[in-house]
Amino acid sequence: MVPFNNILVVGVGLIGGSMALALKERGFAGEIVGYGRTQANLDEALVMGVIDRAAADLTTAAAEADLVVVAVPVQASAAVFSQVKGSLQSDAVVTDVGSTKKSIVDVARQTLGNHFQRFVPGHPIAGSEKSGAVSANSNLFVNRHVILTPHEDNAADTIDRVTALWRHTGASVSRLPAEYHDQVLAATSHLPHLLAYGLVSTLAQQPGHEDIFKYAAGGFRDFTRIASSDPVMWRDICLDNKTAIQSILDHFRDTLDQLSEFMANDDGDALYDVFTAAKAQRDQLINKI
Amino acid sequence: MVPFNNILVVGVGLIGGSMALALKERGFAGEIVGYGRTQANLDEALVMGVIDRAAADLTTAAAEADLVVVAVPVQASAAVFSQVKGSLQSDAVVTDVGSTKKSIVDVARQTLGNHFQRFVPGHPIAGSEKSGAVSANSNLFVNRHVILTPHEDNAADTIDRVTALWRHTGASVSRLPAEYHDQVLAATSHLPHLLAYGLVSTLAQQPGHEDIFKYAAGGFRDFTRIASSDPVMWRDICLDNKTAIQSILDHFRDTLDQLSEFMANDDGDALYDVFTAAKAQRDQLINKI
Repeated sequence: MVPFNNILVVGVGLIGGSMALALKERGFAGEIVGYGRTQANLDEALVMGVIDRAAADLTTAAAEADLVVVAVPVQASAAVFSQVKGSLQSDAVVTDVGSTKKSIVDVARQTLGNHFQRFVPGHPIAGSEKSGAVSANSNLFVNRHVILTPHEDNAADTIDRVTALWRHTGASVSRLPAEYHDQVLAATSHLPHLLAYGLVSTLAQQPGHEDIFKYAAGGFRDFTRIASSDPVMWRDICLDNKTAIQSILDHFRDTLDQLSEFMANDDGDALYDVFTAAKAQRDQLINKI
Repeated sequence: MVPFNNILVVGVGLIGGSMALALKERGFAGEIVGYGRTQANLDEALVMGVIDRAAADLTTAAAEADLVVVAVPVQASAAVFSQVKGSLQSDAVVTDVGSTKKSIVDVARQTLGNHFQRFVPGHPIAGSEKSGAVSANSNLFVNRHVILTPHEDNAADTIDRVTALWRHTGASVSRLPAEYHDQVLAATSHLPHLLAYGLVSTLAQQPGHEDIFKYAAGGFRDFTRIASSDPVMWRDICLDNKTAIQSILDHFRDTLDQLSEFMANDDGDALYDVFTAAKAQRDQLINKI
């Protein structure tokens, strides 16, 4: 059971759209209203049946909703909170789907006023390098983790209801402290994106880059898949979670220095040990994703 | 037409095994003999029909072959060349499948004596994180690049015959200078492997590594797929091609320093520009792999 009747999705992209579609295909009987900057995207969402209705005005739509899902790039969230704040029903719940959580909690605390206690920060760990409503997929969250990072002011019912909402999409819901979430995601998601963008950027600057890309094979394609992700979203994440990203990046640079030294010293045993341990970790991991 | 009748594959792993299987499934009428260190792997290759016969003795098998395919880790090639050299027929052709080419040419020049003119260095740009005869796949080379790096002493017929051999597997065959090949592959393959191993290694050392791996999603799985590759093979490649790898690694570290500085300075525009250009490069590339 989805404990909401009128859901407003602000930002009908891959995540917001997939959530809407997942709810509708799993029997959600209420209304899902979409709001976004781009009319073409909203039209696409309507045609695909991702949303029931496109709202022309954010404030009006927020007044009718018992749940507002903010699914825009992190740095655009403050403006959305400010716009909806004045018209929200007193018991409406607000949640988000951003990839960083500490800063959104701070922003929500500053902008939502009394309604902050009804804001449940959330992050579905499911994505793709694709974007827009056209990429919406009703099974995107099946067997995926959704992490909620409730704060000390949260009214208990808000956390439970957002948990129920996500479970309805097929996701497994966990709770973590916001700061810890940001450290974990910096390591497992944000740093890899930075490395993939950085690698493609580095290679594109080489004199022989046509040959480099010509002879790239499947390993390179998979390794760099995430470099096809939305630049605006990842710019925002990098700025927003820069402390945690810099910290894990520093560790990674230490590892690169070490591997470089092993090569310089022809220390095959040391390289072998690092590669063997990494392979074992990765092989173990792959059975779980 | 495959211009050989008796092919000896030394090292019936993913590459050697897939080449054998590709030839047999495409009508090669001669005999394919396998030689390797591990009896279990050879037994598997026989059962799967990858090879017609397993050779007990490398020197004897080499005496019967008109083509010897050396498909062992790069650093093990010298020993194979030394062992086969004395028994090769005068017109037998020798080729290899190693991921680095400059050092194998040097090794072959030193160990093969007069037969060096019949050694054609080759590198099929097709792989997988899997290894062993059990992973052999007759379509592994279809629409893939095979790069030959002929040297100045090569007898003309040897290059043409090895080219015909690879075309028969479905591959597209190119020729590059060995040193240039090594620079291109350092960028497109060797560095990404080093980064993937290095990332998994870094994360495994973090205090919260259980949660890091728990919340890893598809992006991380794809990004680190190549960290499941064979550690021996990649140790050898890193030692063998360390000059070219260090060079591109230095460029990559410069890029990381720059991205780190952009984050530190909250320079969203600069991050956006790098990400946007990388996405465009990568999107263009993906249509070609």
